[in-house]
Amino acid sequence: MQKPKILNSEIVAESRLFRIEQLELEFSNGVTARYERLLGSERGAVLIVPMLDADTVLLIREYAAGMHRYELGLPKGKIEKDEDILVAANREIQEEVGYASRKLVHVSSLTLAPGYLGHTTHVILATDLYASPAQGDEPEEIEVVPWSMRELDALMLRDDFSEARSIAALYMIRDRLMG
Amino acid sequence: MQKPKILNSEIVAESRLFRIEQLELEFSNGVTARYERLLGSERGAVLIVPMLDADTVLLIREYAAGMHRYELGLPKGKIEKDEDILVAANREIQEEVGYASRKLVHVSSLTLAPGYLGHTTHVILATDLYASPAQGDEPEEIEVVPWSMRELDALMLRDDFSEARSIAALYMIRDRLMG
Repeated sequence: MQKPKILNSEIVAESRLFRIEQLELEFSNGVTARYERLLGSERGAVLIVPMLDADTVLLIREYAAGMHRYELGLPKGKIEKDEDILVAANREIQEEVGYASRKLVHVSSLTLAPGYLGHTTHVILATDLYASPAQGDEPEEIEVVPWSMRELDALMLRDDFSEARSIAALYMIRDRLMG
Repeated sequence: MQKPKILNSEIVAESRLFRIEQLELEFSNGVTARYERLLGSERGAVLIVPMLDADTVLLIREYAAGMHRYELGLPKGKIEKDEDILVAANREIQEEVGYASRKLVHVSSLTLAPGYLGHTTHVILATDLYASPAQGDEPEEIEVVPWSMRELDALMLRDDFSEARSIAALYMIRDRLMG
């Protein structure tokens, strides 16, 4: 299908972390419409599935300001300017779970709500881990929660495990590792 | 764990669709920090898994402004003020895939990026469908794409199927329907 033409775009609101862009679009049928979208960070983010062994994934529990509650999920973070995706993944797991990986593989690239968010998250499978803690910029210590991949069903039933990216990534990895 | 105290909050940027809130937080260890989050819509959104038969899910292909490309995904939309969640789900599938459902079940509630987004999406399984098209407010016709649940692996490999919510919901439903 032919993409709509962007007739005009402008930043209509901006904060320290967020930028909102307004688009004037013309669809291929001639209909024009005004859309808004949140621009993502330039390089996107990484979400890492760190496997301590063939069955054990390392989750983290941390405060999630968007929901104002503690959430379980996979380690993740923004890719820095000029930083390689896999280097970013290895930095984040050292900061958040205290391990580095000798084998990092890009599995998939996810969007969150592509209709109005410009965010891309790269899912990285990290295996062959070794202890290598690094200091992040977190306001409090992150709790590391090992979880068995055979117990995904129980994880899905938890109220504090809700993040679509983490759920999608764990199912993908389970299919990949366990056929 | 004890949630951080919200010392102060204020809206720091706002557009037609988005509102960004700044939070001054004090963690239980005494550390204070400034966070920003995007506020979600009051009632959240629904994401529907409409099953035409035991194996066939109805996907849609539509323009996704956040990524400026066409994306495959599940039908979805905002819940209107005072609208029941299941009523919203049934309205959205009539507008987007042309079917209504006699059996709607709430399966799970997902977040997108709970660290900085206040968005909740309720996943609804819709079965026992019957033709009942309704007019939505889309700028162009939405393409409906039937997909076999046995072919999820092939779907995951597609570049135009990237949305974490849709991926998470389909895996959950596959586990639920097919054990």
